[in-house]
Amino acid sequence: MPHDVFPRSEYESRVERTKERLHERDLDAIVVADPANMNYLAGYDGWSFYVHQAVVVTRDYPEPVWVGRDMDRNGARATTWLAEENMRAYSDDHVHSPYDLHPMDFLADVLEDLAVDAGRIGLEMDAAYFTAKSYTRLRSQLPNAEFVDADLLVNWLRIHKSDREIAYMEEAARISEEAMLAGLDAIEAGVPEYEAAAAIYDRLVRGTDEYGGDYPAIVPLMPSGDHTGTPHLTWTDREFEEGDPVLIELSGCRHRYHSPLARTTFVGDPPDAIEETADVVVEGIEAALDVVEPGVTCERVEREWRETIAQYGVEKEDRIGYSMGLGYPPDWGEHTASIRPGDETVMEEGMTFHMIPGLWEDEFGVELSETFRVTSTGAETLADFPRRLFTA
Amino acid sequence: MPHDVFPRSEYESRVERTKERLHERDLDAIVVADPANMNYLAGYDGWSFYVHQAVVVTRDYPEPVWVGRDMDRNGARATTWLAEENMRAYSDDHVHSPYDLHPMDFLADVLEDLAVDAGRIGLEMDAAYFTAKSYTRLRSQLPNAEFVDADLLVNWLRIHKSDREIAYMEEAARISEEAMLAGLDAIEAGVPEYEAAAAIYDRLVRGTDEYGGDYPAIVPLMPSGDHTGTPHLTWTDREFEEGDPVLIELSGCRHRYHSPLARTTFVGDPPDAIEETADVVVEGIEAALDVVEPGVTCERVEREWRETIAQYGVEKEDRIGYSMGLGYPPDWGEHTASIRPGDETVMEEGMTFHMIPGLWEDEFGVELSETFRVTSTGAETLADFPRRLFTA
Repeated sequence: MPHDVFPRSEYESRVERTKERLHERDLDAIVVADPANMNYLAGYDGWSFYVHQAVVVTRDYPEPVWVGRDMDRNGARATTWLAEENMRAYSDDHVHSPYDLHPMDFLADVLEDLAVDAGRIGLEMDAAYFTAKSYTRLRSQLPNAEFVDADLLVNWLRIHKSDREIAYMEEAARISEEAMLAGLDAIEAGVPEYEAAAAIYDRLVRGTDEYGGDYPAIVPLMPSGDHTGTPHLTWTDREFEEGDPVLIELSGCRHRYHSPLARTTFVGDPPDAIEETADVVVEGIEAALDVVEPGVTCERVEREWRETIAQYGVEKEDRIGYSMGLGYPPDWGEHTASIRPGDETVMEEGMTFHMIPGLWEDEFGVELSETFRVTSTGAETLADFPRRLFTA
Repeated sequence: MPHDVFPRSEYESRVERTKERLHERDLDAIVVADPANMNYLAGYDGWSFYVHQAVVVTRDYPEPVWVGRDMDRNGARATTWLAEENMRAYSDDHVHSPYDLHPMDFLADVLEDLAVDAGRIGLEMDAAYFTAKSYTRLRSQLPNAEFVDADLLVNWLRIHKSDREIAYMEEAARISEEAMLAGLDAIEAGVPEYEAAAAIYDRLVRGTDEYGGDYPAIVPLMPSGDHTGTPHLTWTDREFEEGDPVLIELSGCRHRYHSPLARTTFVGDPPDAIEETADVVVEGIEAALDVVEPGVTCERVEREWRETIAQYGVEKEDRIGYSMGLGYPPDWGEHTASIRPGDETVMEEGMTFHMIPGLWEDEFGVELSETFRVTSTGAETLADFPRRLFTA
């Protein structure tokens, strides 16, 4: 069954650009272990990243080579565009092995087959799932290779989105809107947090009337009450109470492409202070979105946010956004450009960012986000959702 | 806010046993990066493992030390039992940094503070999230340290469950039963896969009438039709069709403890061949469960499965199960004992395993699993769910 998420030509162009980077950096090959990068180049899509796997691209060999567990070879057949001989699978005794076997031993053999075992090989040194052991094992297996940190090489290609990628992110945005509505509807005093999470999840997966949703790379987060200062705690059995601020951050997902969205709601009658803070956040994010256009730097956009909120006496120097799109747990971010001081990345048409600024006072926090794409003239937000403090 | 998932004494006992292992292996400290191990020792529970974080245990310092991102310090305050001075947080410019800063630079300083920077330090070399870069960076920051692979040191402690851990797994089992029912109910010809996934997810998160569910470490998997040979592909927009076998594997989760469950259903009237295969799987798993008792080895249990199915002419030598419990994405397995040939781990009372054998023919697969705990006399399955082929 051929993969049809993108036309073959789109994958080929991604591989071509990867090979150009290899050439520029004088690398003979790269071992791609980030599941999002594996998907980007080969189309591979499965929840198998709890075992070691990779896609290898060399300068000379035409296609990428998928390397994974034998049990997942059929999954590679079903989702990648690769020829049969370019799916290489190791036996199950390599998995959590008591036999001193490691998947990287097998990968080393593949690199030998591809005649790059004495070459300069790029590794994604800081990618989740490319472990310290994978590195030391590869080194000991291939003593004649020179290993080079090529972290983010493919991620930086991903920062430019094709029309089809944007279309999937727009589909994801439709799901994000529905899921945010479901979450806002579910939250009220006396309702346990997990019920709101369930309502959001149901919508994230059920999707819209036209298509379903994929699992998001990050679970819906909704710190509430005292916990608005703990952005990465997940839902509990606690019931929402009158006077709780609740920050909801979630993302719909289509074919692994995300469009995150965050809003804040308040259970009960919001005090003036939180309304005022929300107004500042809205003004700040709108000012920052207004300066986005091709040619502007990421740090410039952050500065606009910072200067806008400074008018209200708020000083805060932070990362307020990042490039994102395709992703697997634990993260939908691309780990490349950040909207923060010192990041001189120049925005270009077709890039997509999640801008998520927030302000935290002692008693509450307000967070509000937009996923946007850079158009020829400015920023276009993917979701269409009111920018204001909600009440429950 | 103190952590109350386990009494403080239970955490202290875990730390004590960790220190005994450090002593046995002549280690001065261990850097624990696996989120499940971090939770096990410190109680820390947040979706923050997309940035580098760790818990450090040394032989001499009384408490573990949590090391994470500044933004997550409040989360550590809310979920760990640690004293304020034992939560050390790095600034946000270490995150996906363009400034040549890495969280391991900060961790190296912590190790210096703890006076183990010239000691023998254990690392979880093959843990997801402990990247190659984390390793090389730590090495370059601490040239006088000796680094030792201490992978799975804490995981092997986790294999013995306390009564309270078992109680959470039993709560998770109640959720697994409900979610499996919801999935079986939802599947029928003409229903898209994502609708069944949404029904399962809703129940996984909504939980039972008494308590909610946590997010599972692995999303519900339900390969169907031609895809039953692709165990790790996730749901799509495809509609179930008459004649589809569907394998459902899912797990409820409570306080990060899992109780996975798998069953097979058939859309329409099942052919005799699949009924017969299902009977063999049921007989095989029941025979294997029957030989479980304290003192028996994992390989012995696998052999019982293999010899049972061999009576029906089926030959298959595979891993059919593994130790599990506490977990975060990407995996609920503990990566220690496996029920497979060559694994001589001796089963003891209080251990918990997921036994998940399956048989695949050309046209279909049948999978059926049980999570069980080893009691003083045998195996007790956590879920109570009919063991048979279902039809939709």
